[in-house]
Amino acid sequence: MSLTLVLIGIGTGNPRHLTQEAVAAMNEVDALLIPRKGPDKEDLAELRREICARNLRAPGPRLHEFDLPVRDENTPDYRRRVDDWHDAIAATWSRALAEALPGGGKAGFLVWGDPSLYDSTLRIVERLRQRMPLELRVIPGITAIQALTAGHGITLNEIGAPFVVTTGRRLRDAGWPPAADTVVVMLDGSCSFQSLDPAGISIWWSAYAGMETEIRIAGPLAEVTARIVAARQAAREEHGWIMDIYLLRRGA
Amino acid sequence: MSLTLVLIGIGTGNPRHLTQEAVAAMNEVDALLIPRKGPDKEDLAELRREICARNLRAPGPRLHEFDLPVRDENTPDYRRRVDDWHDAIAATWSRALAEALPGGGKAGFLVWGDPSLYDSTLRIVERLRQRMPLELRVIPGITAIQALTAGHGITLNEIGAPFVVTTGRRLRDAGWPPAADTVVVMLDGSCSFQSLDPAGISIWWSAYAGMETEIRIAGPLAEVTARIVAARQAAREEHGWIMDIYLLRRGA
Repeated sequence: MSLTLVLIGIGTGNPRHLTQEAVAAMNEVDALLIPRKGPDKEDLAELRREICARNLRAPGPRLHEFDLPVRDENTPDYRRRVDDWHDAIAATWSRALAEALPGGGKAGFLVWGDPSLYDSTLRIVERLRQRMPLELRVIPGITAIQALTAGHGITLNEIGAPFVVTTGRRLRDAGWPPAADTVVVMLDGSCSFQSLDPAGISIWWSAYAGMETEIRIAGPLAEVTARIVAARQAAREEHGWIMDIYLLRRGA
Repeated sequence: MSLTLVLIGIGTGNPRHLTQEAVAAMNEVDALLIPRKGPDKEDLAELRREICARNLRAPGPRLHEFDLPVRDENTPDYRRRVDDWHDAIAATWSRALAEALPGGGKAGFLVWGDPSLYDSTLRIVERLRQRMPLELRVIPGITAIQALTAGHGITLNEIGAPFVVTTGRRLRDAGWPPAADTVVVMLDGSCSFQSLDPAGISIWWSAYAGMETEIRIAGPLAEVTARIVAARQAAREEHGWIMDIYLLRRGA
Protein backbone atom coordinates (compact mmCIF):
# COMPACT_ATOMS: atom_id res chain seq x y z
CA MET A 1 0.00 0.00 0.00
CA SER A 2 1.45 3.33 -1.05
CA LEU A 3 0.44 6.62 0.47
CA THR A 4 1.36 10.13 -0.73
CA LEU A 5 0.67 13.25 1.28
CA VAL A 6 0.49 16.52 -0.61
CA LEU A 7 0.78 19.68 1.54
CA ILE A 8 -0.78 22.52 -0.40
CA GLY A 9 0.05 26.11 0.55
CA ILE A 10 -3.05 28.22 -0.08
CA GLY A 11 -1.91 31.72 0.85
CA THR A 12 -2.98 34.02 3.61
CA GLY A 13 -6.71 34.40 3.33
CA ASN A 14 -7.15 35.91 -0.11
CA PRO A 15 -8.74 33.03 -2.05
CA ARG A 16 -6.97 34.34 -5.16
CA HIS A 17 -3.56 33.71 -3.56
CA LEU A 18 -4.02 30.13 -4.78
CA THR A 19 -1.46 29.18 -7.41
CA GLN A 20 -2.32 27.17 -10.51
CA GLU A 21 -0.13 24.41 -9.07
CA ALA A 22 -2.18 24.41 -5.85
CA VAL A 23 -5.47 24.18 -7.75
CA ALA A 24 -4.13 21.29 -9.84
CA ALA A 25 -2.88 19.50 -6.72
CA MET A 26 -6.24 19.92 -4.95
CA ASN A 27 -7.94 18.24 -7.90
CA GLU A 28 -5.35 15.48 -8.35
CA VAL A 29 -5.55 14.00 -4.85
CA ASP A 30 -7.97 11.18 -3.96
CA ALA A 31 -8.99 12.77 -0.67
CA LEU A 32 -8.65 16.18 0.93
CA LEU A 33 -8.25 16.04 4.71
CA ILE A 34 -10.09 18.91 6.37
CA PRO A 35 -9.68 19.52 10.10
CA ARG A 36 -13.15 20.10 11.54
CA LYS A 37 -12.08 21.85 14.68
CA GLY A 38 -8.65 23.09 15.48
CA PRO A 39 -6.60 26.21 15.58
CA ASP A 40 -8.56 27.83 12.75
CA LYS A 41 -10.96 30.60 13.45
CA GLU A 42 -14.48 30.31 12.04
CA ASP A 43 -13.79 33.00 9.37
CA LEU A 44 -10.89 30.89 8.15
CA ALA A 45 -12.87 27.65 8.11
CA GLU A 46 -15.49 29.45 6.02
CA LEU A 47 -12.77 30.75 3.69
CA ARG A 48 -11.37 27.25 3.27
CA ARG A 49 -14.82 25.97 2.32
CA GLU A 50 -15.06 28.82 -0.22
CA ILE A 51 -11.64 27.92 -1.65
CA CYS A 52 -12.75 24.29 -2.09
CA ALA A 53 -16.10 25.27 -3.60
CA ARG A 54 -14.47 27.61 -6.09
CA ASN A 55 -11.65 25.37 -7.22
CA LEU A 56 -12.65 21.72 -7.01
CA ARG A 57 -13.95 20.31 -10.28
CA ALA A 58 -16.16 17.23 -10.56
CA PRO A 59 -15.58 14.46 -9.70
CA GLY A 60 -12.86 15.92 -7.47
CA PRO A 61 -11.41 14.41 -4.32
CA ARG A 62 -13.40 13.06 -1.40
CA LEU A 63 -13.56 15.59 1.41
CA HIS A 64 -12.65 13.85 4.64
CA GLU A 65 -13.26 15.93 7.74
CA PHE A 66 -11.56 15.00 10.99
CA ASP A 67 -11.27 16.43 14.49
CA LEU A 68 -8.00 17.87 15.73
CA PRO A 69 -6.94 17.55 19.36
CA VAL A 70 -6.71 20.63 21.54
CA ARG A 71 -3.37 21.80 22.90
CA ASP A 72 -2.92 21.25 26.64
CA GLU A 73 -2.09 24.74 27.84
CA ASN A 74 -1.24 23.36 31.30
CA THR A 75 2.08 21.83 30.26
CA PRO A 76 4.44 24.55 31.49
CA ASP A 77 7.39 24.13 29.09
CA TYR A 78 6.66 25.67 25.66
CA ARG A 79 8.74 23.27 23.54
CA ARG A 80 7.34 20.29 25.45
CA ARG A 81 3.76 21.53 25.09
CA VAL A 82 4.25 21.91 21.34
CA ASP A 83 5.92 18.48 21.13
CA ASP A 84 3.08 16.71 22.97
CA TRP A 85 0.52 18.49 20.86
CA HIS A 86 2.26 17.52 17.61
CA ASP A 87 2.33 13.88 18.76
CA ALA A 88 -1.39 13.99 19.45
CA ILE A 89 -2.07 15.56 16.03
CA ALA A 90 0.07 12.94 14.29
CA ALA A 91 -1.99 10.19 15.92
CA THR A 92 -5.19 11.87 14.68
CA TRP A 93 -3.81 12.28 11.16
CA SER A 94 -2.76 8.67 11.11
CA ARG A 95 -6.34 7.56 11.86
CA ALA A 96 -7.80 10.05 9.38
CA LEU A 97 -5.49 8.78 6.61
CA ALA A 98 -6.41 5.16 7.35
CA GLU A 99 -10.12 6.03 7.21
CA ALA A 100 -9.94 8.23 4.12
CA LEU A 101 -7.62 6.02 2.07
CA PRO A 102 -7.72 2.46 3.41
CA GLY A 103 -6.16 1.15 0.20
CA GLY A 104 -3.55 3.92 -0.13
CA GLY A 105 -3.49 6.78 -2.63
CA LYS A 106 -2.94 10.51 -2.52
CA ALA A 107 -4.15 12.67 0.35
CA GLY A 108 -4.09 16.45 0.21
CA PHE A 109 -3.93 18.85 3.13
CA LEU A 110 -4.48 22.58 2.77
CA VAL A 111 -2.04 24.78 4.70
CA TRP A 112 -2.57 28.50 5.30
CA GLY A 113 0.34 30.51 3.92
CA ASP A 114 3.21 28.20 3.09
CA PRO A 115 4.11 24.96 4.91
CA SER A 116 7.69 26.15 5.52
CA LEU A 117 6.92 29.18 7.66
CA TYR A 118 5.93 28.98 11.34
CA ASP A 119 3.62 26.11 10.56
CA SER A 120 3.57 22.75 12.30
CA THR A 121 2.39 20.57 9.41
CA LEU A 122 5.85 19.41 8.27
CA ARG A 123 6.78 18.51 11.85
CA ILE A 124 3.63 16.42 12.10
CA VAL A 125 4.52 14.72 8.81
CA GLU A 126 7.95 13.81 10.26
CA ARG A 127 6.19 12.10 13.17
CA LEU A 128 3.75 10.38 10.79
CA ARG A 129 6.65 8.98 8.82
CA GLN A 130 7.84 7.20 11.96
CA ARG A 131 4.47 5.42 12.01
CA MET A 132 3.97 4.63 8.31
CA PRO A 133 5.79 4.89 4.96
CA LEU A 134 4.71 8.11 3.26
CA GLU A 135 5.68 10.01 0.15
CA LEU A 136 5.64 13.79 0.66
CA ARG A 137 5.05 16.58 -1.84
CA VAL A 138 4.89 20.27 -0.91
CA ILE A 139 3.20 22.97 -3.00
CA PRO A 140 4.47 26.43 -2.03
CA GLY A 141 1.98 29.18 -1.15
CA ILE A 142 1.98 32.95 -0.63
CA THR A 143 3.13 33.75 2.92
CA ALA A 144 2.01 36.48 5.31
CA ILE A 145 5.44 38.06 4.77
CA GLN A 146 4.70 38.61 1.08
CA ALA A 147 1.14 39.77 1.81
CA LEU A 148 2.68 42.30 4.23
CA THR A 149 5.25 43.67 1.78
CA ALA A 150 2.84 43.66 -1.16
CA GLY A 151 0.20 45.56 0.81
CA HIS A 152 2.68 48.26 1.81
CA GLY A 153 4.57 48.21 -1.52
CA ILE A 154 7.92 47.73 0.23
CA THR A 155 10.94 45.48 -0.15
CA LEU A 156 12.09 43.01 2.48
CA ASN A 157 15.78 43.71 2.06
CA GLU A 158 17.75 46.87 1.50
CA ILE A 159 20.22 46.60 -1.41
CA GLY A 160 22.44 43.56 -0.83
CA ALA A 161 21.51 43.55 2.87
CA PRO A 162 20.23 40.71 5.08
CA PHE A 163 17.04 40.55 7.10
CA VAL A 164 15.86 38.50 10.06
CA VAL A 165 12.49 36.80 10.49
CA THR A 166 11.61 36.18 14.11
CA THR A 167 8.76 35.91 16.61
CA GLY A 168 7.24 38.45 19.00
CA ARG A 169 8.44 36.39 21.95
CA ARG A 170 12.04 36.46 20.68
CA LEU A 171 11.95 40.18 19.99
CA ARG A 172 10.69 40.79 23.52
CA ASP A 173 13.17 38.42 25.18
CA ALA A 174 16.29 39.02 23.10
CA GLY A 175 15.80 42.54 21.73
CA TRP A 176 16.75 43.63 18.22
CA PRO A 177 18.58 40.73 16.55
CA PRO A 178 22.24 41.60 15.87
CA ALA A 179 22.43 40.42 12.26
CA ALA A 180 20.40 43.00 10.33
CA ASP A 181 18.70 46.38 10.15
CA THR A 182 15.45 44.81 8.94
CA VAL A 183 13.37 42.47 11.09
CA VAL A 184 10.08 40.79 10.22
CA VAL A 185 8.07 39.76 13.28
CA MET A 186 5.43 37.04 13.27
CA LEU A 187 3.37 35.24 15.96
CA ASP A 188 3.28 38.34 18.13
CA GLY A 189 0.36 38.28 20.51
CA SER A 190 1.33 41.39 22.43
CA CYS A 191 2.74 44.17 20.21
CA SER A 192 6.31 43.34 21.27
CA PHE A 193 7.67 46.30 19.31
CA GLN A 194 6.74 48.30 22.42
CA SER A 195 9.75 46.72 24.15
CA LEU A 196 12.17 48.52 21.77
CA ASP A 197 13.61 52.01 21.99
CA PRO A 198 11.69 53.43 18.99
CA ALA A 199 14.32 56.02 18.01
CA GLY A 200 15.30 55.59 14.35
CA ILE A 201 12.98 52.63 13.77
CA SER A 202 10.16 52.56 11.20
CA ILE A 203 7.36 50.00 11.21
CA TRP A 204 5.06 48.59 8.53
CA TRP A 205 2.23 46.73 10.26
CA SER A 206 -0.61 44.69 8.75
CA ALA A 207 -3.45 42.76 10.35
CA TYR A 208 -5.35 40.11 8.33
CA ALA A 209 -2.70 40.61 5.61
CA GLY A 210 -4.09 39.56 2.25
CA MET A 211 -7.71 39.34 3.42
CA GLU A 212 -10.50 41.75 2.55
CA THR A 213 -10.39 43.00 6.12
CA GLU A 214 -6.67 43.89 5.88
CA ILE A 215 -5.60 46.87 8.01
CA ARG A 216 -2.28 48.64 7.43
CA ILE A 217 -0.43 51.23 9.47
CA ALA A 218 3.11 52.45 8.74
CA GLY A 219 5.42 55.17 9.95
CA PRO A 220 8.11 56.01 12.49
CA LEU A 221 7.65 53.61 15.41
CA ALA A 222 7.59 56.45 17.94
CA GLU A 223 4.67 58.09 16.09
CA VAL A 224 2.47 55.10 15.25
CA THR A 225 2.88 52.70 18.19
CA ALA A 226 -0.21 53.94 20.02
CA ARG A 227 -2.30 53.87 16.82
CA ILE A 228 -1.27 50.27 16.09
CA VAL A 229 -1.97 49.08 19.62
CA ALA A 230 -5.42 50.71 19.54
CA ALA A 231 -6.25 49.46 16.03
CA ARG A 232 -5.18 45.93 16.95
CA GLN A 233 -7.31 45.92 20.08
CA ALA A 234 -10.36 47.28 18.24
CA ALA A 235 -9.97 44.81 15.35
CA ARG A 236 -9.57 41.91 17.71
CA GLU A 237 -12.77 42.84 19.51
CA GLU A 238 -14.63 43.29 16.24
CA HIS A 239 -13.53 40.00 14.64
CA GLY A 240 -13.04 37.87 17.75
CA TRP A 241 -9.50 37.00 16.59
CA ILE A 242 -6.52 38.71 14.99
CA MET A 243 -3.48 37.71 12.98
CA ASP A 244 -0.87 40.40 12.44
CA ILE A 245 2.67 40.77 11.14
CA TYR A 246 5.11 43.63 10.80
CA LEU A 247 8.43 44.73 9.41
CA LEU A 248 10.80 46.95 11.42
CA ARG A 249 13.64 48.84 9.76
CA ARG A 250 16.41 50.74 11.47
CA GLY A 251 17.95 53.87 9.97
CA ALA A 252 15.56 53.86 7.00
CA MET B 1 -3.74 61.81 -16.54
CA SER B 2 -3.68 58.96 -14.07
CA LEU B 3 -1.20 56.13 -14.25
CA THR B 4 -1.20 52.91 -12.22
CA LEU B 5 1.68 50.48 -12.19
CA VAL B 6 0.92 46.90 -11.18
CA LEU B 7 3.94 44.79 -10.23
CA ILE B 8 2.99 41.15 -10.65
CA GLY B 9 5.04 38.46 -8.92
CA ILE B 10 5.04 35.38 -11.17
CA GLY B 11 7.06 32.87 -9.16
CA THR B 12 10.38 31.25 -9.81
CA GLY B 13 10.16 29.65 -13.21
CA ASN B 14 7.37 27.14 -12.78
CA PRO B 15 4.58 28.67 -14.91
CA ARG B 16 2.07 27.14 -12.49
CA HIS B 17 3.46 29.25 -9.63
CA LEU B 18 1.16 31.98 -10.97
CA THR B 19 -1.58 32.87 -8.52
CA GLN B 20 -5.16 33.50 -9.55
CA GLU B 21 -4.62 37.10 -8.44
CA ALA B 22 -1.63 37.41 -10.78
CA VAL B 23 -3.56 36.00 -13.75
CA ALA B 24 -6.43 38.42 -13.07
CA ALA B 25 -4.02 41.35 -12.78
CA MET B 26 -2.27 40.44 -16.05
CA ASN B 27 -5.62 40.55 -17.81
CA GLU B 28 -6.88 43.72 -16.12
CA VAL B 29 -4.03 46.01 -17.15
CA ASP B 30 -4.11 48.05 -20.36
CA ALA B 31 -0.52 47.28 -21.27
CA LEU B 32 2.08 44.78 -20.12
CA LEU B 33 5.63 46.15 -20.24
CA ILE B 34 8.06 43.46 -21.33
CA PRO B 35 11.80 44.14 -21.19
CA ARG B 36 13.29 42.96 -24.49
CA LYS B 37 16.84 42.60 -23.28
CA GLY B 38 18.06 42.82 -19.78
CA PRO B 39 19.20 40.66 -16.94
CA ASP B 40 16.98 37.74 -17.97
CA LYS B 41 18.48 34.69 -19.53
CA GLU B 42 16.97 33.44 -22.80
CA ASP B 43 15.31 30.44 -21.06
CA LEU B 44 13.53 32.90 -18.77
CA ALA B 45 12.45 35.19 -21.61
CA GLU B 46 10.96 32.13 -23.31
CA LEU B 47 9.23 31.13 -20.09
CA ARG B 48 7.75 34.61 -19.74
CA ARG B 49 6.38 34.38 -23.28
CA GLU B 50 4.87 31.01 -22.36
CA ILE B 51 3.28 32.47 -19.21
CA CYS B 52 1.70 35.27 -21.28
CA ALA B 53 0.52 32.88 -24.00
CA ARG B 54 -1.09 30.55 -21.48
CA ASN B 55 -2.80 33.13 -19.32
CA LEU B 56 -3.78 36.18 -21.37
CA ARG B 57 -7.35 36.08 -22.62
CA ALA B 58 -8.63 38.07 -25.63
CA PRO B 59 -8.67 40.99 -25.98
CA GLY B 60 -6.04 41.21 -23.20
CA PRO B 61 -3.51 43.94 -22.64
CA ARG B 62 -1.21 45.41 -25.26
CA LEU B 63 2.27 43.91 -25.00
CA HIS B 64 4.79 46.72 -25.02
CA GLU B 65 8.37 45.57 -25.36
CA PHE B 66 11.19 47.90 -24.42
CA ASP B 67 14.98 47.71 -24.11
CA LEU B 68 16.66 47.82 -20.74
CA PRO B 69 20.04 49.49 -20.25
CA VAL B 70 23.08 47.41 -19.37
CA ARG B 71 24.78 47.81 -16.01
CA ASP B 72 28.17 49.53 -16.19
CA GLU B 73 30.43 47.01 -14.51
CA ASN B 74 33.30 49.55 -14.53
CA THR B 75 31.88 51.67 -11.69
CA PRO B 76 33.95 50.35 -8.81
CA ASP B 77 31.59 50.95 -5.86
CA TYR B 78 28.82 48.32 -5.70
CA ARG B 79 26.08 50.52 -4.20
CA ARG B 80 26.92 53.34 -6.62
CA ARG B 81 26.92 50.99 -9.61
CA VAL B 82 23.48 49.67 -8.60
CA ASP B 83 22.23 53.24 -8.00
CA ASP B 84 23.36 54.47 -11.42
CA TRP B 85 21.87 51.43 -13.08
CA HIS B 86 18.51 51.92 -11.34
CA ASP B 87 18.48 55.56 -12.48
CA ALA B 88 19.09 54.47 -16.06
CA ILE B 89 16.33 51.85 -15.84
CA ALA B 90 13.90 54.38 -14.37
CA ALA B 91 14.53 56.69 -17.35
CA THR B 92 13.84 53.80 -19.73
CA TRP B 93 10.65 52.83 -17.89
CA SER B 94 9.48 56.40 -17.95
CA ARG B 95 9.78 56.50 -21.75
CA ALA B 96 8.18 53.06 -22.10
CA LEU B 97 5.18 54.12 -19.97
CA ALA B 98 4.74 57.31 -21.98
CA GLU B 99 4.80 55.33 -25.23
CA ALA B 100 2.57 52.48 -24.05
CA LEU B 101 -0.03 54.60 -22.25
CA PRO B 102 0.12 58.18 -23.55
CA GLY B 103 -3.32 58.89 -22.08
CA GLY B 104 -2.71 57.13 -18.77
CA GLY B 105 -4.16 53.83 -17.58
CA LYS B 106 -2.86 50.69 -15.97
CA ALA B 107 0.51 49.21 -16.84
CA GLY B 108 1.58 45.77 -15.63
CA PHE B 109 5.10 44.52 -15.12
CA LEU B 110 5.94 40.85 -14.50
CA VAL B 111 8.51 40.21 -11.78
CA TRP B 112 10.23 36.86 -11.25
CA GLY B 113 9.62 35.57 -7.74
CA ASP B 114 8.16 38.33 -5.59
CA PRO B 115 8.87 42.06 -5.90
CA SER B 116 9.89 42.30 -2.23
CA LEU B 117 12.88 39.94 -2.32
CA TYR B 118 16.27 40.91 -3.76
CA ASP B 119 14.59 42.52 -6.71
CA SER B 120 15.16 46.06 -7.95
CA THR B 121 11.72 46.81 -9.36
CA LEU B 122 10.33 48.60 -6.29
CA ARG B 123 13.46 50.77 -6.09
CA ILE B 124 12.97 51.74 -9.71
CA VAL B 125 9.34 52.58 -9.00
CA GLU B 126 10.48 54.91 -6.18
CA ARG B 127 12.67 56.75 -8.70
CA LEU B 128 9.84 56.83 -11.24
CA ARG B 129 7.57 58.43 -8.68
CA GLN B 130 10.00 61.32 -8.43
CA ARG B 131 9.43 61.88 -12.16
CA MET B 132 5.66 61.32 -12.41
CA PRO B 133 2.60 60.69 -10.24
CA LEU B 134 2.00 56.96 -10.09
CA GLU B 135 -0.33 54.63 -8.24
CA LEU B 136 1.34 51.37 -7.24
CA ARG B 137 -0.14 47.94 -6.70
CA VAL B 138 1.89 44.83 -5.86
CA ILE B 139 0.73 41.25 -6.42
CA PRO B 140 2.78 38.80 -4.32
CA GLY B 141 4.42 35.80 -5.98
CA ILE B 142 6.10 32.55 -4.92
CA THR B 143 9.74 33.23 -4.02
CA ALA B 144 12.85 31.13 -4.56
CA ILE B 145 12.91 30.62 -0.77
CA GLN B 146 9.59 28.81 -0.89
CA ALA B 147 10.57 26.86 -3.99
CA LEU B 148 13.69 25.76 -2.07
CA THR B 149 11.86 24.62 1.06
CA ALA B 150 9.00 23.01 -0.90
CA GLY B 151 11.44 21.05 -3.07
CA HIS B 152 13.27 19.67 -0.05
CA GLY B 153 10.14 19.34 2.12
CA ILE B 154 11.72 21.35 4.95
CA THR B 155 10.70 24.23 7.20
CA LEU B 156 12.44 27.59 7.27
CA ASN B 157 12.33 28.00 11.02
CA GLU B 158 12.82 25.61 13.89
CA ILE B 159 10.02 25.79 16.49
CA GLY B 160 9.66 29.40 17.64
CA ALA B 161 13.15 30.20 16.31
CA PRO B 162 14.32 33.02 14.00
CA PHE B 163 16.13 32.74 10.67
CA VAL B 164 18.27 35.09 8.60
CA VAL B 165 18.08 35.69 4.87
CA THR B 166 21.30 37.04 3.43
CA THR B 167 23.53 37.10 0.35
CA GLY B 168 26.57 35.04 -0.63
CA ARG B 169 28.73 38.15 -0.44
CA ARG B 170 27.63 38.84 3.16
CA LEU B 171 28.15 35.25 4.25
CA ARG B 172 31.67 35.36 2.79
CA ASP B 173 32.53 38.77 4.28
CA ALA B 174 30.82 38.58 7.66
CA GLY B 175 30.62 34.85 8.38
CA TRP B 176 27.65 33.14 10.01
CA PRO B 177 25.19 35.85 11.11
CA PRO B 178 24.88 35.98 14.91
CA ALA B 179 21.10 36.10 15.13
CA ALA B 180 20.04 32.57 14.21
CA ASP B 181 20.91 28.92 13.62
CA THR B 182 19.20 28.95 10.22
CA VAL B 183 20.45 31.02 7.30
CA VAL B 184 19.04 31.24 3.78
CA VAL B 185 21.58 32.44 1.23
CA MET B 186 20.66 34.06 -2.09
CA LEU B 187 22.60 35.81 -4.88
CA ASP B 188 25.63 33.64 -4.30
CA GLY B 189 27.84 33.46 -7.38
CA SER B 190 30.63 31.53 -5.76
CA CYS B 191 29.45 28.82 -3.34
CA SER B 192 30.25 31.01 -0.33
CA PHE B 193 29.35 28.18 2.06
CA GLN B 194 32.91 27.00 1.39
CA SER B 195 34.12 29.89 3.58
CA LEU B 196 32.49 28.34 6.70
CA ASP B 197 33.84 25.71 9.05
CA PRO B 198 31.40 22.94 8.01
CA ALA B 199 31.34 21.15 11.38
CA GLY B 200 27.76 20.74 12.62
CA ILE B 201 26.22 22.52 9.62
CA SER B 202 23.71 20.94 7.23
CA ILE B 203 22.83 22.36 3.81
CA TRP B 204 19.80 22.11 1.54
CA TRP B 205 20.80 23.41 -1.90
CA SER B 206 18.68 23.90 -5.03
CA ALA B 207 19.53 25.22 -8.47
CA TYR B 208 16.75 26.42 -10.82
CA ALA B 209 14.38 26.00 -7.84
CA GLY B 210 10.82 25.51 -9.09
CA MET B 211 11.81 24.91 -12.71
CA GLU B 212 11.67 21.60 -14.56
CA THR B 213 15.46 21.56 -14.49
CA GLU B 214 15.59 21.86 -10.67
CA ILE B 215 18.57 20.14 -9.03
CA ARG B 216 18.63 19.41 -5.29
CA ILE B 217 21.43 18.28 -3.01
CA ALA B 218 21.19 18.08 0.79
CA GLY B 219 23.27 16.73 3.63
CA PRO B 220 25.98 17.56 6.14
CA LEU B 221 27.98 20.44 4.66
CA ALA B 222 31.28 18.60 5.14
CA GLU B 223 30.00 15.69 3.06
CA VAL B 224 28.19 17.42 0.19
CA THR B 225 30.23 20.58 -0.47
CA ALA B 226 32.29 19.00 -3.24
CA ARG B 227 29.21 17.48 -4.89
CA ILE B 228 27.39 20.82 -4.87
CA VAL B 229 30.36 22.72 -6.30
CA ALA B 230 30.74 20.14 -9.08
CA ALA B 231 26.98 19.97 -9.83
CA ARG B 232 26.76 23.77 -9.95
CA GLN B 233 29.69 24.00 -12.35
CA ALA B 234 28.30 21.27 -14.63
CA ALA B 235 24.79 22.77 -14.65
CA ARG B 236 26.14 26.20 -15.39
CA GLU B 237 28.08 24.88 -18.36
CA GLU B 238 25.09 22.93 -19.61
CA HIS B 239 22.53 25.77 -19.35
CA GLY B 240 24.81 28.75 -19.89
CA TRP B 241 23.53 30.30 -16.64
CA ILE B 242 22.59 29.26 -13.14
CA MET B 243 20.44 30.53 -10.29
CA ASP B 244 20.80 28.77 -6.97
CA ILE B 245 19.77 29.18 -3.36
CA TYR B 246 20.41 27.27 -0.16
CA LEU B 247 19.49 26.92 3.48
CA LEU B 248 22.14 26.26 6.14
CA ARG B 249 21.22 24.97 9.59
CA ARG B 250 23.50 24.65 12.60
CA GLY B 251 23.08 21.87 15.14
CA ALA B 252 20.23 20.25 13.20
